[in-house]
Amino acid sequence: MSDAKTGMKPCARPFLAAAKDFASGKDTPRAFLERCLAETDAREKDILAYVATNIEGARAAADASSQRWRDGRPLSPIDGMPVGIKDVIETADMPTGMGSPLYDGWSPGHDAASVHALREAGAVIVGKTVTTEFAASEPGPTRNPWDTSRTPGGSSSGSAAGVAAGYFSAALGTQVIGSILRPSSYCGVIGYKPTFGTINRGGSHDYMSQSSQGVIAASLDDCWQAAWEISQRCGGDPGYGGLAGPASLPQAPAPKTLVLLETAGWAEASDEAKTRMLEAAESLRAAGISVLTRKDSADIEAAEQALVECMGISRTVNAWESRWPLNTYRDRDAAKLSKAMYDRSLEAEAMNLDDYRKAIARRAEIRAVYARLAGIADCCITLAASAAAPVGLRSTGSALFAVTSSMLGAPSLSLPVLQEEGLPLGMQVIGFDNRDAHAFAVSHSILNTLDPARAVRA
Amino acid sequence: MSDAKTGMKPCARPFLAAAKDFASGKDTPRAFLERCLAETDAREKDILAYVATNIEGARAAADASSQRWRDGRPLSPIDGMPVGIKDVIETADMPTGMGSPLYDGWSPGHDAASVHALREAGAVIVGKTVTTEFAASEPGPTRNPWDTSRTPGGSSSGSAAGVAAGYFSAALGTQVIGSILRPSSYCGVIGYKPTFGTINRGGSHDYMSQSSQGVIAASLDDCWQAAWEISQRCGGDPGYGGLAGPASLPQAPAPKTLVLLETAGWAEASDEAKTRMLEAAESLRAAGISVLTRKDSADIEAAEQALVECMGISRTVNAWESRWPLNTYRDRDAAKLSKAMYDRSLEAEAMNLDDYRKAIARRAEIRAVYARLAGIADCCITLAASAAAPVGLRSTGSALFAVTSSMLGAPSLSLPVLQEEGLPLGMQVIGFDNRDAHAFAVSHSILNTLDPARAVRA
Repeated sequence: MSDAKTGMKPCARPFLAAAKDFASGKDTPRAFLERCLAETDAREKDILAYVATNIEGARAAADASSQRWRDGRPLSPIDGMPVGIKDVIETADMPTGMGSPLYDGWSPGHDAASVHALREAGAVIVGKTVTTEFAASEPGPTRNPWDTSRTPGGSSSGSAAGVAAGYFSAALGTQVIGSILRPSSYCGVIGYKPTFGTINRGGSHDYMSQSSQGVIAASLDDCWQAAWEISQRCGGDPGYGGLAGPASLPQAPAPKTLVLLETAGWAEASDEAKTRMLEAAESLRAAGISVLTRKDSADIEAAEQALVECMGISRTVNAWESRWPLNTYRDRDAAKLSKAMYDRSLEAEAMNLDDYRKAIARRAEIRAVYARLAGIADCCITLAASAAAPVGLRSTGSALFAVTSSMLGAPSLSLPVLQEEGLPLGMQVIGFDNRDAHAFAVSHSILNTLDPARAVRA
Repeated sequence: MSDAKTGMKPCARPFLAAAKDFASGKDTPRAFLERCLAETDAREKDILAYVATNIEGARAAADASSQRWRDGRPLSPIDGMPVGIKDVIETADMPTGMGSPLYDGWSPGHDAASVHALREAGAVIVGKTVTTEFAASEPGPTRNPWDTSRTPGGSSSGSAAGVAAGYFSAALGTQVIGSILRPSSYCGVIGYKPTFGTINRGGSHDYMSQSSQGVIAASLDDCWQAAWEISQRCGGDPGYGGLAGPASLPQAPAPKTLVLLETAGWAEASDEAKTRMLEAAESLRAAGISVLTRKDSADIEAAEQALVECMGISRTVNAWESRWPLNTYRDRDAAKLSKAMYDRSLEAEAMNLDDYRKAIARRAEIRAVYARLAGIADCCITLAASAAAPVGLRSTGSALFAVTSSMLGAPSLSLPVLQEEGLPLGMQVIGFDNRDAHAFAVSHSILNTLDPARAVRA
């Protein structure tokens, strides 16, 4: 479909598929970048995915990459890949505004760990993408490329919209509640939130115990490759071993067993969304995969009962963990905080350390209940959002489905294999701690089964 | 003793002992601060503990505190306590220079989590204290108040020297190798490195998996109270429950059993240091405490054998974890890095993710070996440094003893109960994960036994 207002279709641009023509010179990273920039010129006035760009720098980086491919010495498979960076992640050459007037034009003077790693791998950093205020709920201006009357979701709004619109092949995002999976679902792109700690958050302003940095991409192999190249060069958070798995997209032997979870989201999901999800589950069963539900196992039922607490616990945890730096923002200029953010700071002030300890203790219990499912299934699947992107830009939509993997700390993906009202809707694949590669293999298999065209590899 | 050059004696200023006179008005936080400032005026030209001060702000804060005590409404027991902040920890009112010309005059515009918490508790932030370059090995100008021809140790050089010289009752420090315990030992003050994660590092530039923020103080109860008040207001690192324990210094029932560890440090310790440590162990035995050694238990012998690896593993872990941001510093201006720091960046570049994974896997094994000692002893004791502060300012001394608790992630204290060549030397108390309060209780008991004058409580 095309956007009613602009008449334009989203046009995601997988990079690895194009890169096979770089060595021969039939295509080049510079030409690839120019196609992205042409799309940006045509659509950005309607999409508003960028906060800042460094086009001159991107062109220079793409030229250098083109030369490396020509010389047969690319720095990595993603050498030349155009990438967008969520504007809570620091960059040396562009400001980091965090969606807040408090940080308007602020520059830390250096790249975040993941951004530096991307540059080491040859990636072309094109620009900073719109985030909600401090990656929370107050929306930015970005519109959904599938229908510009709708939200792209948040908080990684510009990253998801930019991938969907073909501005870049991949983008960095962060998720503490639903900030990668939700916009990926709404924008019809691949979203990947790693196991907690898997991608180094140095220089990313999301200092919370459920927050992960992740990748939003035009294809599953672009997504894996970008994450893997980053991890090889800057690892995970300190103390974590980084992304474990092969040097290219994990292959896709069909999973034996999946668990179809409802989670708290099922109660608010639209009828069409539920129908599409159940149809997809039937298709997977028809392909020989066992898809279990809460009726099939006491462990699954126990997990379902526990997972309804995910949003409540996440809100409590996030409130305490935002006490700082929110108190410093309030000190500086409370008038520059949105009402939602100011209210969160009051919520944080009303909490004490014991409230927080109880929340993280309960979180640990729920994680243990969920972990038992690793004994019976390859992964879990559910919706990534309760419906397609809602109309309007004042809310980034519900994160009730997406919050599950955030609270669990588990790896998850949103796969653009469902639709609602003709708009994209993601299937969420939730894996188990540090088995991100297996979640990719399962996702690969699901794409092969449900949407073979999308699963084609470079 | 007094310093040979200046003829002045160190004069640590415990705060809680003085605070009992604040309610009556016999003493006030402002008067307390003025005594600290007078000492600073007299000695700072020789000690050089400060990078920056905010005297006007400190006096205003002390006046407000004096009024609260007069009104019978102090914000906490440390309301009015003068505190110094290591210059890798962010402050709203003073620059954060990190001991590097790359950050000369840099200001983040806000307080770190712990600094904000201290202000909420009424503490008086007097100034920023000298750190080695990026809290690593390249020394700053600070001199040891006991003998200004000697190093105060590092990297929390100014924090330890300032407490010893009576500039403030407590100071924040950070330790990733030996940066709290070593200067505390050399300067004859209480040093506390918490269990990993116990004090929120938000806004502190020590993003490493062994790094802890901790407190250096003039007395054991000042130390506990400052740490506890901070933790109540900003908690631990995200995902950690903060400092567990009572609202004032844990009481001191005598420990039943201690383990006297040698660690790798014993081989380099001076004869006098070893003699003093063994004499102290005899004194503890004479007081009825069982002090075991490697000859007494296979578990202790196994721990001793494992702990010799602490320094090597820590260096490997730190090198990888410094890859970022060191690579960004090098990009900006390599000439502004010390040779030691530049060499570390090269070491980091030569490593890969697998090297790091092996190091943290081995670290986990050693931690498990050490944890078995929790079944047989209250705490472990050893030297905090291999000798008194060495002469000269070009090195901050050996951290071979202090690194043990850093690698373990365990809580530890340096207690100023030993001497070498008439200079201070710390006894190190190493506890077990999240049992920081018990390590304080044991320390309290050790002080009572070995140095009753120091153990007097307010």
